[in-house]
Amino acid sequence: MEIADLKKQVDQYLQKHLGSDCDQSTLYESMYYSLMAGGKRLRPNLTLAVVHALGKDLDDDVMRAASAVELLHTYSLIHDDLPAMDNDDLRRFLPTNHRRFGAGMATLAGDGLLTLAFQWVSDNHLKETVRLQLVQLLAQAAGPAGMVAGQAMDIHYEGTGLSLNELKNLHAKKTGSLLRYSVMAGGVIAQAPADTLRVLASFGAHYGLAFQIYDDLMDVVSSEAKMGKAVNKDADEQKNTYPNLLGIDGTKQALAQAIAGAKADKQQLDNRGVGDFSLLDDFLAYFRY
Amino acid sequence: MEIADLKKQVDQYLQKHLGSDCDQSTLYESMYYSLMAGGKRLRPNLTLAVVHALGKDLDDDVMRAASAVELLHTYSLIHDDLPAMDNDDLRRFLPTNHRRFGAGMATLAGDGLLTLAFQWVSDNHLKETVRLQLVQLLAQAAGPAGMVAGQAMDIHYEGTGLSLNELKNLHAKKTGSLLRYSVMAGGVIAQAPADTLRVLASFGAHYGLAFQIYDDLMDVVSSEAKMGKAVNKDADEQKNTYPNLLGIDGTKQALAQAIAGAKADKQQLDNRGVGDFSLLDDFLAYFRY
Repeated sequence: MEIADLKKQVDQYLQKHLGSDCDQSTLYESMYYSLMAGGKRLRPNLTLAVVHALGKDLDDDVMRAASAVELLHTYSLIHDDLPAMDNDDLRRFLPTNHRRFGAGMATLAGDGLLTLAFQWVSDNHLKETVRLQLVQLLAQAAGPAGMVAGQAMDIHYEGTGLSLNELKNLHAKKTGSLLRYSVMAGGVIAQAPADTLRVLASFGAHYGLAFQIYDDLMDVVSSEAKMGKAVNKDADEQKNTYPNLLGIDGTKQALAQAIAGAKADKQQLDNRGVGDFSLLDDFLAYFRY
Repeated sequence: MEIADLKKQVDQYLQKHLGSDCDQSTLYESMYYSLMAGGKRLRPNLTLAVVHALGKDLDDDVMRAASAVELLHTYSLIHDDLPAMDNDDLRRFLPTNHRRFGAGMATLAGDGLLTLAFQWVSDNHLKETVRLQLVQLLAQAAGPAGMVAGQAMDIHYEGTGLSLNELKNLHAKKTGSLLRYSVMAGGVIAQAPADTLRVLASFGAHYGLAFQIYDDLMDVVSSEAKMGKAVNKDADEQKNTYPNLLGIDGTKQALAQAIAGAKADKQQLDNRGVGDFSLLDDFLAYFRY
């Protein structure tokens, strides 16, 4: 099993099942457009990798529960791109949802995907206690104490310089909480014991932190490569990124630390002897710099 | 017990508990602003009336599960009012959420309330099977085959004349599905048997239909009273309302039919001898014309 195999299964599940839970054609087109616009499926892949590591089959019920987080992630991108938010015209080289369907329909497509995520984690045939735990964890991770709080901080802090701790807290909520959920969800679905779930949560948090630091770093490095000059010097110093707060070397150090934390968690999982977590190394190998 | 007592309990529960699930101050203010802007609490009242009728105490867990639908209803009003949707400046004599907090924060407040609704139906101490059923029913009622589909139809049909059946279908999804959920939720929480749930669902559907017809009728009648003339004749004939499709008398007839349907359902509930449903009569008495 490789990450690419997981992605393929998620793509197929989403494509096949979105329509049966949607009852208005333009709404469906709008949801489908953003959902199938070429995402990496990182979040459901993480869930499925953990389920697989713990020895449970990836049957249709697991696929439904695991794919739900991709519905939720896609809603957050659609709403983030809205004129009232970031006002972006392009996403993954395509017009954003509201540029294609209008801001009203884009708002509804996001609302529909968010609601459908809770339907998918709850209406499969996994054990009741598993499904209920997924609903609770997903609502906490995505709601006004999680992802939505992070997005509100983004608006609230616009144009003001943050401390490193404030930046970490913002990212922990805005992107970290859903990545942490995705890793934990695998443990919940495979009915891992509580202490394994705690290590999975820690891996998810370290992974989420590394993800955001890497994203900031690549913004600078890839721009440098493209522009043929050190764009970081020209960067808006007001912009709250790790390179602006720590410099390039400090950012690389912080990234290495976060990855080391995730690797230590993975080592702990290995030590327990509850499964083969080698796929998690592949997710960490993504952070090449 | 009267409806006013239920409303008071819902108001208190919402006011007391919204803050503990929200982690960003402006987001909290924005959610609180719309949630406490003077709603009638019709949906949670319906749930609580049924729970009470079936003899179950309205303890904190019941209040949490029942109040969740008001979070969800409030999200739908905030997003409906957005510039990208109806672009309304006033709601209940106050500036709409986006006029007060900006369209970005209003979008997030809606997203937060929607997500929190699923948290509240799932993280109380009711039986697991009860909570899971509430999550599933709420997601179906509110999602892209329910309320969000109705709102998408509204955008899709804008400016085109609908048949009576199309109008009924639009309203059944846009407002009916959440009212039907609210009545059913009471039966689920009180663990009523499946055949009682079916009658409650039928009552909820009849009630939701009556609600929408009454709303359309009052728009005409109260305008007539205020303007001192028959405004229906001046009304935009393109606007999809019951009076425009059926005339005033036909609309009153349709309303009487929907109420009669609800009363027949209530009679069936009485015949079962499983509880005292007299509060449901009070909800029907609201439709005075």
